[in-house]
Amino acid sequence: MSILDFLIGRPIATSDERGEEIGISRGIPIFGLDALSSAAYGPEAALTLLIPLGVAGLTYILPISAAIITLLLIVFFSYRQTIAAYPGGGGSYTVAHENLGTFPGLLAATALMIDYVLTAAVGISAGIGALTSALPQLHPRTLTLCLAALALITLVNLRGVRETGGVFMVPTYLFIASMFAAIAWGVVTSIASGGHPAPILPPPAPPKAVAAFSFWLILKAFSSGCTALTGVEAVSNGVRAFREPTARTAQRTLGIIIACLLIMLGGIAYLAHAYKIAATDPNGQNYQSVLSMMFAAISGRGTFYYVAIFSVLLVLVFSANTAFADFPRVCRVLANDAFLPISMANRGRRLVYSQGVLVLAFFTAALLIAFGGITDRLIPLYAVGAFLAFTLSQAGMVAHWRRQGGESAKRYMFVNALGAFATGITVIVVILAKFMEGAWITVVTIPAILAFMYGVRRHYDKVLAEITTSGPIDPDTIVAPCVIVPIQRWTTVAKSALCSAFAISDDIHVVYVSGDEQGHDDFNRTWEADVVEPARAANRPVPELVCIESPYRFVVGPIVDYVLESARKNPDRRIVAIVPEIVERRWYNYFLHSQRAALLKTSLLMHGTNKISVLNIPWYVK
Amino acid sequence: MSILDFLIGRPIATSDERGEEIGISRGIPIFGLDALSSAAYGPEAALTLLIPLGVAGLTYILPISAAIITLLLIVFFSYRQTIAAYPGGGGSYTVAHENLGTFPGLLAATALMIDYVLTAAVGISAGIGALTSALPQLHPRTLTLCLAALALITLVNLRGVRETGGVFMVPTYLFIASMFAAIAWGVVTSIASGGHPAPILPPPAPPKAVAAFSFWLILKAFSSGCTALTGVEAVSNGVRAFREPTARTAQRTLGIIIACLLIMLGGIAYLAHAYKIAATDPNGQNYQSVLSMMFAAISGRGTFYYVAIFSVLLVLVFSANTAFADFPRVCRVLANDAFLPISMANRGRRLVYSQGVLVLAFFTAALLIAFGGITDRLIPLYAVGAFLAFTLSQAGMVAHWRRQGGESAKRYMFVNALGAFATGITVIVVILAKFMEGAWITVVTIPAILAFMYGVRRHYDKVLAEITTSGPIDPDTIVAPCVIVPIQRWTTVAKSALCSAFAISDDIHVVYVSGDEQGHDDFNRTWEADVVEPARAANRPVPELVCIESPYRFVVGPIVDYVLESARKNPDRRIVAIVPEIVERRWYNYFLHSQRAALLKTSLLMHGTNKISVLNIPWYVK
Repeated sequence: MSILDFLIGRPIATSDERGEEIGISRGIPIFGLDALSSAAYGPEAALTLLIPLGVAGLTYILPISAAIITLLLIVFFSYRQTIAAYPGGGGSYTVAHENLGTFPGLLAATALMIDYVLTAAVGISAGIGALTSALPQLHPRTLTLCLAALALITLVNLRGVRETGGVFMVPTYLFIASMFAAIAWGVVTSIASGGHPAPILPPPAPPKAVAAFSFWLILKAFSSGCTALTGVEAVSNGVRAFREPTARTAQRTLGIIIACLLIMLGGIAYLAHAYKIAATDPNGQNYQSVLSMMFAAISGRGTFYYVAIFSVLLVLVFSANTAFADFPRVCRVLANDAFLPISMANRGRRLVYSQGVLVLAFFTAALLIAFGGITDRLIPLYAVGAFLAFTLSQAGMVAHWRRQGGESAKRYMFVNALGAFATGITVIVVILAKFMEGAWITVVTIPAILAFMYGVRRHYDKVLAEITTSGPIDPDTIVAPCVIVPIQRWTTVAKSALCSAFAISDDIHVVYVSGDEQGHDDFNRTWEADVVEPARAANRPVPELVCIESPYRFVVGPIVDYVLESARKNPDRRIVAIVPEIVERRWYNYFLHSQRAALLKTSLLMHGTNKISVLNIPWYVK
Repeated sequence: MSILDFLIGRPIATSDERGEEIGISRGIPIFGLDALSSAAYGPEAALTLLIPLGVAGLTYILPISAAIITLLLIVFFSYRQTIAAYPGGGGSYTVAHENLGTFPGLLAATALMIDYVLTAAVGISAGIGALTSALPQLHPRTLTLCLAALALITLVNLRGVRETGGVFMVPTYLFIASMFAAIAWGVVTSIASGGHPAPILPPPAPPKAVAAFSFWLILKAFSSGCTALTGVEAVSNGVRAFREPTARTAQRTLGIIIACLLIMLGGIAYLAHAYKIAATDPNGQNYQSVLSMMFAAISGRGTFYYVAIFSVLLVLVFSANTAFADFPRVCRVLANDAFLPISMANRGRRLVYSQGVLVLAFFTAALLIAFGGITDRLIPLYAVGAFLAFTLSQAGMVAHWRRQGGESAKRYMFVNALGAFATGITVIVVILAKFMEGAWITVVTIPAILAFMYGVRRHYDKVLAEITTSGPIDPDTIVAPCVIVPIQRWTTVAKSALCSAFAISDDIHVVYVSGDEQGHDDFNRTWEADVVEPARAANRPVPELVCIESPYRFVVGPIVDYVLESARKNPDRRIVAIVPEIVERRWYNYFLHSQRAALLKTSLLMHGTNKISVLNIPWYVK
């Protein structure tokens, strides 16, 4: 276990759990990275869609950003209330499930799970994309780098929450500081120059307009920009992980995250407009990210530029971590309600829901491989899930307040209803605007996952109904089992197996599979001398010797058949099939023995019945 | 099992074995492909080393070929005698082992096994090399093609010997016919033109001489040319597979194979000299094989050329088959003598020693991958093993005749002594001439394999000494076992496990691993009502309830510790650990349950003792 100790850390006792809790300064990197890093791709995704409008497109980024910021504020106030109402963890699943019913709950959970996988994939691919833009020679290795980053994040998360916060604090605060400094610097310069600042390093001139203004284009740009809102629900999901008073700490953390994000989105929009920074074609030769052009325009390509770009890169890759903090929690809740395999609710050695971490890593890897680790192709799948979960969660809160009643509840209800309405409209807009580009994949996946979860639940219900005990034991009905011992040679191992049979029953059947005449005669002789005579002398019943011919040289098959036949003939009795086995202490000696014992055990387990049990008698080679 | 049936064929009964025997016409492709196909690379390997001598090098191919042919004849007469003396299969191992002792026997066997792996690798790589020469666009896929060919040959051989002969007959006879036709045509043309035939398509002019004649160079050319002799021992190894009278059939088969090979080697040497065909640089751009140049010089690039080249290609790839026919037989003999894992002596469902086939396939694949599937790099490793085995086998025959005594034995002894001497000298020459180029790998591998085989034997001897039974059973000393039943919840599964415990012993200990208080209290209540009271009422001993605290949430560990501790406290008693297990009939439902039962079984088997046995009580979900 020492390799596991080294990689994942020593086991943590359940009683140490309190020590794993989180304050505001750690909470921001852990639950806010996803939301904050959205600033690095959200505005760019919107600007990219405005490219066909040429320089005129830059005019529209201001109203689009205003709409997104308004939406962000509505969602913030909505989730503030959710945190207060659900201090035990108000994930979209919990809120929708409790207030609207099972189906809306599962729908919200599914939407969230899909979005977490996309968060991880987009974060990693965008970060690696930034790296390969800076160092083009790494470009052919994009996918490999993505998977390596994924492996690293997975490992960090298997070590547990506290370490995670520690690892991600520095880049998060470096990113916030760089963005704030750049925005402050740019805004001051811009105001000082009367709104027309001279860029230190001018961005490439916006391309000529090839399309006229259309409402549809603006809608698509808004939909893509909405990816900036993803990750906002993370805090409400994870309230339980915060330090006491959990709800207040969580609310403050959320407030700071939203305030930072708001400043960044507003700042980027203002500066893009002031410095005339249009997006460049992400598939083109001269692609440069919007943030890179912005930093260069404000400060030139000096130390500040490289520090800022580096922090963007780190934050993007690490933003995937929010998904790793929350996906396993959603899985745990679903597993406790028997909608996912129960093992996802078991905590690993480090108090982490390790299986959820591994499942997320698996699906993220699959997405990265399928899309070659390219952000641009992943973006259209994104945001549908997040906004669907937002909507269901807010709608659930509306029902919650209605049920609670009272004057203040009415006010709360209004806020949540506004949130539900705004995000609901956005879901429809996003699905319509990006359906052909990839949103259809998300739309198709949701029912598949729902069907899976209902299937798991149905199966658990069935098994539970079956194994729920039907009362006390009845010792009087219990009789000694019928014991079957396969023996091919009379060795110490066989002797040990036969003695075990004598110890548990008087009804013993020894099965000998006959290969050649000579071996058969030898065995018969030993059998008489070493088993039959001593048994008679001790007044014990003599075991029955069953010889089976095997023309195909198979040994395991005939034994299994005999056991099954015995079970059929004695439907009311328990059958114990004894499997003697030579066990090597060193694994490499394992290959020196025929694997008949293992094969026999597996075969009996596969074809057996409730009445057939297998008694494995090991013989350890010294 | 239907997939196995489709791929490998239905099982064949042991009693059908006679039907698998082989006549001359099938024997030639099965045991002769390796020897015959050597004609396609042996002369070329010698000519390649003569390239530095320019056109003058062609003069030396005649004496070198004469030396190789003489060696071939000596080896032929030697092996003819071996077949007669060992009609039960006179592999080098058998002959050297019986007459010289264990070490020389194992040395011969090791040498042969290495050479079989090389035969398979060289045959496949040379064949694919011919293919990629003809179709250069396939060149980047060399390794993939090699591995695909290997997979195909492996599958054919897993199906069994008879089918093998059938598959390989057509290409073998096509190859022999093409070669004979080309040689006859070329020789007639040459004689008709007074020894200076005009090539239809002239071969490239030999390069300028860059080195002078040296004895060392001729020696190296001879060493490389000796690869033409590999595979000659195959028939003597497989005598048992031939039709009655086995020895005569085998001798005739060997005679025909050697005669064909002799004509080919002589013919190629004569024609290379007459048509001035020098080898081309195998690493150069304009590489063309000697046979390709020869066919083109004699017949031009018409239908005959392509048929002949195609037959060369097929025969080279299929020559690997000789290794597949013989390697498993050598392994079987060694396994029966306990120098290799016993499973290599078990016949598979198709009367083939399947494990030997798979082991050969594995090592061949490893060699192909390590050397990139390039023949030129494999050749220097080759022939050392074959000639070492030849030498030991002939030396063994000398000892055999000496022991037999008599007049005719003296004559036989002379022939074998001559063979041993000639091949012994050749071993030394080959090792010296090709040591640096790769023969050292073979020289280093041999002791490693020897050490492995002695290690296996030592281990088997130890185990055998340990398990050989020490006499009859003593029923009076046998007492009921101490039974341990882990139960976490009172379900039908747990009840079934406890009833099984009641059925086999009165000494029962139920282990409950405590997670939370609530669960513990619930369990205690059910325990009293459903177990303790009914047991008392039936006047049966009440099982002991053992509760274990587990701060790290592990369940399996504490149970295993308790079982081991019980075994320590009662060194003389048998402990039966019961493992209840929910078994799903459908594999995909398997993941819905915690794998505790499987983990518990594995852990107990890993850490257990001879006194601890595991009783697996399955519960099948309907």
